Amino acid sequence: MATGAQPSSDIKQKIESANAEAVKRINAAEPVLVDIAPAREVIPGLGNRMILHSGPPVDWQNMCGAQRGGMIGAVLFENWAGSVDEASRLLENGTIQFEPTHHHQSVGPMAGTISPSMPVWVVENRTFGNRAFCRQVEGRQQFGDYSDSALEGLRQWRDIWAPSLRKGLLQMGGLELKPIIAKALTMGDELHNRPVAASSLFANALACPMIEAGVGRDDLLSTLNYITKHELLFLGLSMASGKASVDPAAGIEYSTVVVAMARNGTEFGIRVSGLGEEWFTASSPRVNGLYFPGYTEKDAGADMGDSAITETAGWGGLVLAGATGILGLVGGTPEEALAYSKEMRQITVTTSSNYRMPVFGFKGAPLGIDIRKVVQTGITPIIDTAIAHRNPGYSIIGAGLVRAPLECFKKALLRFGRKYGIAEPIKGSISPPFGKGR
Amino acid sequence: MATGAQPSSDIKQKIESANAEAVKRINAAEPVLVDIAPAREVIPGLGNRMILHSGPPVDWQNMCGAQRGGMIGAVLFENWAGSVDEASRLLENGTIQFEPTHHHQSVGPMAGTISPSMPVWVVENRTFGNRAFCRQVEGRQQFGDYSDSALEGLRQWRDIWAPSLRKGLLQMGGLELKPIIAKALTMGDELHNRPVAASSLFANALACPMIEAGVGRDDLLSTLNYITKHELLFLGLSMASGKASVDPAAGIEYSTVVVAMARNGTEFGIRVSGLGEEWFTASSPRVNGLYFPGYTEKDAGADMGDSAITETAGWGGLVLAGATGILGLVGGTPEEALAYSKEMRQITVTTSSNYRMPVFGFKGAPLGIDIRKVVQTGITPIIDTAIAHRNPGYSIIGAGLVRAPLECFKKALLRFGRKYGIAEPIKGSISPPFGKGR
Repeated sequence: MATGAQPSSDIKQKIESANAEAVKRINAAEPVLVDIAPAREVIPGLGNRMILHSGPPVDWQNMCGAQRGGMIGAVLFENWAGSVDEASRLLENGTIQFEPTHHHQSVGPMAGTISPSMPVWVVENRTFGNRAFCRQVEGRQQFGDYSDSALEGLRQWRDIWAPSLRKGLLQMGGLELKPIIAKALTMGDELHNRPVAASSLFANALACPMIEAGVGRDDLLSTLNYITKHELLFLGLSMASGKASVDPAAGIEYSTVVVAMARNGTEFGIRVSGLGEEWFTASSPRVNGLYFPGYTEKDAGADMGDSAITETAGWGGLVLAGATGILGLVGGTPEEALAYSKEMRQITVTTSSNYRMPVFGFKGAPLGIDIRKVVQTGITPIIDTAIAHRNPGYSIIGAGLVRAPLECFKKALLRFGRKYGIAEPIKGSISPPFGKGR
Repeated sequence: MATGAQPSSDIKQKIESANAEAVKRINAAEPVLVDIAPAREVIPGLGNRMILHSGPPVDWQNMCGAQRGGMIGAVLFENWAGSVDEASRLLENGTIQFEPTHHHQSVGPMAGTISPSMPVWVVENRTFGNRAFCRQVEGRQQFGDYSDSALEGLRQWRDIWAPSLRKGLLQMGGLELKPIIAKALTMGDELHNRPVAASSLFANALACPMIEAGVGRDDLLSTLNYITKHELLFLGLSMASGKASVDPAAGIEYSTVVVAMARNGTEFGIRVSGLGEEWFTASSPRVNGLYFPGYTEKDAGADMGDSAITETAGWGGLVLAGATGILGLVGGTPEEALAYSKEMRQITVTTSSNYRMPVFGFKGAPLGIDIRKVVQTGITPIIDTAIAHRNPGYSIIGAGLVRAPLECFKKALLRFGRKYGIAEPIKGSISPPFGKGR
């Protein structure tokens, strides 16, 4: 670590080089689905009585309603408690531990809860050998619904769908996800709230291998029925791919590139490549969205989930211009979607060499959010996301758009200045020593 | 039929009413895939030794190379001849008849050849009870390649894939195509050269029913492998859907709405609702496109195929703005694609109430090409299409964009004027008695 003041031209050069290395690594990623396995078998450091949750660390007292609901659901799913009250007590008194997903190479949608017996997508970045894990995406328990019918979806995933898919996947020797993601971006997906095309392509990729692997008729039909109708299925895969792709870009000294954005419904946190594993947090923002019948923004919890790893990897809100079909779900106009994607180019280091946007003449998607550029411009990443209830016990209630809080980026830049020996890195939101980037 | 001159306000009103009725019928269409059956079992008037071809009528002497190749391929496929020479002779001397697909409620891609034993998609318009038929889309025989390996694809379709799909389809009691088409238009498809999403969704829809219907393992695997990897599969379904949707709009007295655009590689022909079954033709234009390695425009035949029924129904080139992913195949920029779709609104009667374009804030696709507006503006329908070789014996060599020839529309408008007793309907490409439409 550098200490004391450094010449500004020298530090600027170091930052540029570090950021170039960061996006080079992200561009070099080759995410491959290599397994679908129970979390306890594959996730490093996952304790026997531990549940992972989305976002930065949070204690039970400060945990939002929907995430509490998701935790309770996971405890009941694991049969660690026989009632909601008992589950709450075990979580409150520390009998059941909980830690952030990101501390375990993992990501989870909305509440993000991953418990030991839940099968997770295992995505390996073939270029660097690192792995990332994400749980099943569904519309109920991950939003805080702990009812028995909500948990039934998790049980079918554990007992039928995941094992059947696993057989097919191992039969085919793994599935390269980069081609599916790249193709889906030409098919109106942004791979966060709208992974419709990718989900359809994934279902077609697994159909023959499951038959070839000898999955029995009943399980085959149940699983095919599930994957051919689950339009959000691929979100778990795009999240794991994003995590696996971005993780190798973490820990590069002097890099100002964001390597994680995650929310627990109480706080929004980011991690920055050159700043180790520290979270820079602010209050979770409210989502500006559309609500399902019977719900309004008064019912809504604040922004939640690790799914902003898709934006961190350069998808989601960053490529909204190519996914105008989503606007019926989250609101807004095609012109706004175009403007968002153009705006995101102002706060990123480069564009993707893999993931291209037909609507911009096949230019690469914006890649590598730079905390300097965010603070300099005041433009924060746009994220499209789902909305959970503010209280435990509910399924999804809506979807919309949200901006990452500027405060996270300011805090990170301040820390960056201290760590690398630059006095007053932020002055009127502009940090002269850092230059304007490229 | 009207005779003698009529007051211009009166005729204008009649035309407007007739066109409103035409697009009302097209908007009311409910295309449903009800069967996949050998042509001889379902296509009205298909003789035992007859082959249908795309476009307006043409004789052997004037038939283009690629269509001749397709015809020869169909003769060999039916085992009506043992050699290319013999097949050519039988076609030339009239032993084997050929007639246009459109004269038999049918459409066919490129050469469009449909022979009796070829299984065809059977699409029923549930609103009106009419049926339309389209053959399998592939990349070889329909382009004029009559080699044994090209015909092998037709044999597998006949013997394995079509029968397996038929079992699944009958098991599920038919498949509504409107939801798939509407969804695909939000997924970057234009349903002509780019039916990628629709093909994927169709494969999703048929997987479980084929298993439920008891299709044997080998046929199931072969068929699933075929449908999950065939990105143009749905073109045959969008063509049949287009034909089934537009046919009820034919034969409305006073209507100036186009109900067919079809090309045989020699001539481009259109039919108009108020003008019966007459074809109004011009020379087939050259396609402005991109070529596969080893081919140039010198090798190219002229525009060919019935696939412009998709544009007639309001898809294809008319919705290019929502399918920018196709530009890598056919050339052009996103800005041009946007301009095309906006331009097409100038020559159409209305917009679709079913098929919407997210890129235009979910406005309906342009619907009902009006020969008056085409002649008045000089803007002709834009079609995106594939390119065949000018000689027989080749597979697909490229893809691109083409404009329907203005001459067809002028001829039709002239005939319209004569039929309905309007003197000099075209004056300097403007026809005062017809007004500007709505």
